[in-house]
Amino acid sequence: MNKYLDLIRSIPDFPQKGIIFKDITPLIKDSNAFGSAVNDMTHPFLNDDIDIVVAVEARGYIFGAPMATRLNCGFVPVRKQGKLPYSTSSIEYSLEYGTETLEIHQDAILKGQKVLLVDDVLATGGTLKAAIQLVEKVGGDVEGIAVLIDLVQLHASDIFSPYKFFSLLDI
Amino acid sequence: MNKYLDLIRSIPDFPQKGIIFKDITPLIKDSNAFGSAVNDMTHPFLNDDIDIVVAVEARGYIFGAPMATRLNCGFVPVRKQGKLPYSTSSIEYSLEYGTETLEIHQDAILKGQKVLLVDDVLATGGTLKAAIQLVEKVGGDVEGIAVLIDLVQLHASDIFSPYKFFSLLDI
Repeated sequence: MNKYLDLIRSIPDFPQKGIIFKDITPLIKDSNAFGSAVNDMTHPFLNDDIDIVVAVEARGYIFGAPMATRLNCGFVPVRKQGKLPYSTSSIEYSLEYGTETLEIHQDAILKGQKVLLVDDVLATGGTLKAAIQLVEKVGGDVEGIAVLIDLVQLHASDIFSPYKFFSLLDI
Repeated sequence: MNKYLDLIRSIPDFPQKGIIFKDITPLIKDSNAFGSAVNDMTHPFLNDDIDIVVAVEARGYIFGAPMATRLNCGFVPVRKQGKLPYSTSSIEYSLEYGTETLEIHQDAILKGQKVLLVDDVLATGGTLKAAIQLVEKVGGDVEGIAVLIDLVQLHASDIFSPYKFFSLLDI
């Protein structure tokens, strides 16, 4: 039995019909489970000399920001269009329910800095793939990817085989 | 000299004319400054038996989530309308540029749990005031409020005198 699985709630037809949404809020409000999940997701990357953790708003920040402090590295937010105040690089991509434009500050990452990408749930992989492209656009080297949940039936982690990939829960 | 001040960038006329936006991204991408700021914001509350950290999307999560792991407590996200998948309580409020509706899961906080509210920038205080009301609506007790930056000319922290209030930077 996985100690985290009981703390993931499945919500049918959210945000639209046919999608079964994985609700992580029962896990993160649990003091033991939240800290433990952050540690478990950080552990595989402790010796990889990560410089920067990058995460996509908003749920990605909930794991990415504490992982950055555990790794003693900086944190760079990827945001939706129009939210970042300085000069940005942007990318448009399609996701399971619509299209989305993501942005990163052009000065967010120094050339050659090692980046760990963090997200809560890996579904089709569209968001993470776009985030990788953004990181590379501004000069970062993606070293690894960590997600809380990999929805393995969608086989999205295959896209990320060039990178060190870690998922805490395969559902 | 405050070691953090040089890492806050002022962006005029963002998100709209007349607003000088405080951009925290240079601070959080700096590995030393980010970890140190999280520690400094957490320190005043280490002995307050905080059960839950609550923060408002998206930038609030960047400080709130790591502070929750430092305090060994749970994290509860407040989100904009329609983003949380389960039963919610909501509140509408006016902010310096428009109105906003915020939501919290109804089962997010147990009755009497001690809550620390965290945000990046305190301006007029509208967002934090709404978050306090949401926390109280679902049964939590607000013990304290921690912000990275207090824009002191707006005197918003006066609103929060019933609570333990900490700001890392007064600008």
